Amino acid sequence: MESGTLLQDSLAQAMIEAGALFHRRGWVPATGGNFSARLSSQQVLITASGVHKGELKRDDFLVADMDGQPLEAGRKSSYETGLHMQLYRRDPTIGAVLHVHTIANTVLSRRLDRIELSGYELLKLLPGAPDPAARVEIPVFGNDQDIARLSARVDAHMSERAKFPAYLIAGHGLYAWGDNVAQARHRVEALEFMLECELWSGR
Amino acid sequence: MESGTLLQDSLAQAMIEAGALFHRRGWVPATGGNFSARLSSQQVLITASGVHKGELKRDDFLVADMDGQPLEAGRKSSYETGLHMQLYRRDPTIGAVLHVHTIANTVLSRRLDRIELSGYELLKLLPGAPDPAARVEIPVFGNDQDIARLSARVDAHMSERAKFPAYLIAGHGLYAWGDNVAQARHRVEALEFMLECELWSGR
Amino acid sequence: MESGTLLQDSLAQAMIEAGALFHRRGWVPATGGNFSARLSSQQVLITASGVHKGELKRDDFLVADMDGQPLEAGRKSSYETGLHMQLYRRDPTIGAVLHVHTIANTVLSRRLDRIELSGYELLKLLPGAPDPAARVEIPVFGNDQDIARLSARVDAHMSERAKFPAYLIAGHGLYAWGDNVAQARHRVEALEFMLECELWSGR
Amino acid sequence: MESGTLLQDSLAQAMIEAGALFHRRGWVPATGGNFSARLSSQQVLITASGVHKGELKRDDFLVADMDGQPLEAGRKSSYETGLHMQLYRRDPTIGAVLHVHTIANTVLSRRLDRIELSGYELLKLLPGAPDPAARVEIPVFGNDQDIARLSARVDAHMSERAKFPAYLIAGHGLYAWGDNVAQARHRVEALEFMLECELWSGR
Repeated sequence: MESGTLLQDSLAQAMIEAGALFHRRGWVPATGGNFSARLSSQQVLITASGVHKGELKRDDFLVADMDGQPLEAGRKSSYETGLHMQLYRRDPTIGAVLHVHTIANTVLSRRLDRIELSGYELLKLLPGAPDPAARVEIPVFGNDQDIARLSARVDAHMSERAKFPAYLIAGHGLYAWGDNVAQARHRVEALEFMLECELWSGR
Repeated sequence: MESGTLLQDSLAQAMIEAGALFHRRGWVPATGGNFSARLSSQQVLITASGVHKGELKRDDFLVADMDGQPLEAGRKSSYETGLHMQLYRRDPTIGAVLHVHTIANTVLSRRLDRIELSGYELLKLLPGAPDPAARVEIPVFGNDQDIARLSARVDAHMSERAKFPAYLIAGHGLYAWGDNVAQARHRVEALEFMLECELWSGR
Repeated sequence: MESGTLLQDSLAQAMIEAGALFHRRGWVPATGGNFSARLSSQQVLITASGVHKGELKRDDFLVADMDGQPLEAGRKSSYETGLHMQLYRRDPTIGAVLHVHTIANTVLSRRLDRIELSGYELLKLLPGAPDPAARVEIPVFGNDQDIARLSARVDAHMSERAKFPAYLIAGHGLYAWGDNVAQARHRVEALEFMLECELWSGR
Repeated sequence: MESGTLLQDSLAQAMIEAGALFHRRGWVPATGGNFSARLSSQQVLITASGVHKGELKRDDFLVADMDGQPLEAGRKSSYETGLHMQLYRRDPTIGAVLHVHTIANTVLSRRLDRIELSGYELLKLLPGAPDPAARVEIPVFGNDQDIARLSARVDAHMSERAKFPAYLIAGHGLYAWGDNVAQARHRVEALEFMLECELWSGR
C-alpha cells in the first residue's frame, strides 16, 4: 500500500533524526536504546535488533504486530520490543515510544526506587501538562533480562497506580512516549533535563 | 513594507542561529525557551507558542504589539510574551530578549534567592561593563504561571533596585537582553558560563 | 594487491570515523589515543606517530608486522604499538584495538587499582555478553614509558587471570578491542558510558 | 608581498579552525579568548578586539608590531595584546599563542594559587615533553585590567622561575603557546583535559 509506505518513511525519518540528536548528546551509547512508532491499531514500526541508534538507516526498521512479531520472515526486532508493545496495547493514544540510556537516568535509577520531580517549568511538557508546582513521580523498575516478566510488572504498576509519564529501569534507561515521535522526543528532552538537574542537585 | 520584511528576515535569521547554538549546548530542551527582537517602538518579532527553539524556521516567528498581541489573527505568541514586553516597554534601548533553560541556571535558581557574581573576567560583557572585581547581583524570582503577575514583580524590582543585567526564574530559566540579538546572545553565553562555574564551585 | 588496498581503505575509513566521533566527545585530546585494525594473520594497519586522532587522513595510517615494525621504510608507528600487538598476537579473533583518553577513564584510573562494573545493561556489549547482574573487573595498570615492559605486564595478567574485556593505564587511558572496528567502537562507547556513571556515582 | 599574504591566510585559517573547535567545547564563550601567530621577527597576526572567537572570519585578524601596535590605521587589536607580545618578545621560538576561557580553568584559577600536574600521560605534549611522573607547575596570576602591569608580572615570573609551559589568570583563563598554531592548539587540548581531570578530582 503506497500510503502505508509513505507513512513508514516519514516515521522512520523522524526516528532517524531523533537518534542522531540523542547520540550527539551521548544518550544512545553503543547499540543501546530503541525506538518505535505506531502505524495502525495493528502494526508498529520498530528498530531492528543490534543496530546503532545514532546512525539509523531506513533499513534498520521493521514492521511488527501488536505482539511484537516481525511481519517479514527472517528479521529480528529489538530485544525489548515487548516493553514497547505493552504501552501500545494499553493506551491507543500512544503513537511513539522512545527508550534511551543516559548518564543521569542510569546513575539515578541505580540509586533510587522512584524519582519525584517538582518545581520544574518543564513538567508542563509531560502528559496531562502538570503544574510545575505539582509532584510527579517517575517509577524505577528493577532490571530484568526476562522482558515478558518486566513488561508485566510495568503493566501491573500502571493498573494499580496513578498515571506516570515515563519510567526508568535500574542501570538501564528511560522509557517515554507521546502521541507522535516529535512529542515523545520533546518529553525525552524535558525528562532528561530534569533528571540531569536532579543529578547535579546531589540526590 | 519591503524594508520591514527584510528587517524581520534578518532578525529571524539571527534568532534561528542563536537557537541552533543554544540547542547544541542543551540550553533549550523540548519546546523550552523563547526569543524576541524589537522591530520598532511599537512592534516586536517573537517566537510562536510551542515550537522547538533548536529547529526554528522563518514561519515560527510572529509580529506582536507592545502589549504582546499578535498582529496576525489566529496566531499565538509564546506563553511568556509578557515577560519580553515588560523589558521592551521599560527600556527603549533593549533590542532583543533571549530566554533559556539550562542545567546550571535551573539548579542554582532552585537553590538560591539571588546569585552574586564576582571575580570573573566575563562580567565585562554585561550591561555597563562592570569591573571583574565588582559584585553583580542576579535576582531569582519565584516561578509563577500567572505571567502578568510575574512580569509586574520583575518590573517593581527594577524600579526599586539598582539595575541588574539579567534575571532568573526558579526552576525555569534565565532572561537576558541586549541592544541586538548578537549582544543578547553573547550575554547569555557569558552568564551561563559564569553560572556553570558557580555550579561547579558550589559542590 | 588490489583487494589488500581496498581492505586497507575500508578499515582506515572506519577508524577515521571512529576518531572524529571520539574527538567530538573529547576522548582523543591533542595527539592522544591510537587505533589499529588487523589486515591478516601477519599484518596490522595502525595510526602513525604524533597525528591527531580526531582529524585522521588516509595517509596517517601505516602497515606494520606482528612485532609492530612498519613495512614501509622511514615511517614511524604509534609510540604504543607494542600494546596493540600484544593483543593481536595473543588472540587471533581480535580484529581491532582502540585506545582513548577520557576524563572518566583518566580520573578513575588515577584513583583505583581496578574497576568493578555491575548492574549496567550495557555490560551485555562486552566480550562474552556478561549478564548485567554479573561483576566484571577492568584492571588498571600503572603507567610506564617502557612499552615493552608494560605490554609484558598486560600479557602476564591475561595469562594469570580470568579474561577481562578491556584495561586501563593509570592517568593514561582505556584499551578496548573487538572482532572489527565497529564492535571495538561500540565497546568503547559502552565502557566509557559505564565509567562516566561510576565517576558521577563516586562523588 | 604575495608570500606574506599567503602566510597570513594560512595562519588565519588555522586560527579560525581552532576557534570553531574551541567554541564547540565551550572554551571561548561570548567574545572571550584571543589568538595570535607570528609572521616574522617583527610582526604578529592577532584577533581584532571584540569579535567572537568561535565564528572568526579572515577580516577579524590584523597585523601588529612587536609592541602590539596595529600596522593598519583605525583598527584595534585585542585588549590583551600585550600578554601575547610579552611571549613573542621573550622567546623567539614561539610561533603561536592561544588564550581560552573554560569552566575548568576558571573554577580552578579562582580556587588555587598554582596548579601542579603529575601522573598524566598527556604531560608529554607540553614544552620539553616532561615525563608523566614529573611535577609540572602552572602558575596562576591575579586578574588585572592593567595589561601592561600584568604582562610585566608574567615576564618577571619567567625570569625568576623554572620554565612553565602555560599560565592561568584568576577567573579569566589559560594562556598557552607553541612553535605553531597546531602545536599550541594541541597543548590547549592537553592542558584543558588535565585541568578538567583536576576539577573532577575535587581539588
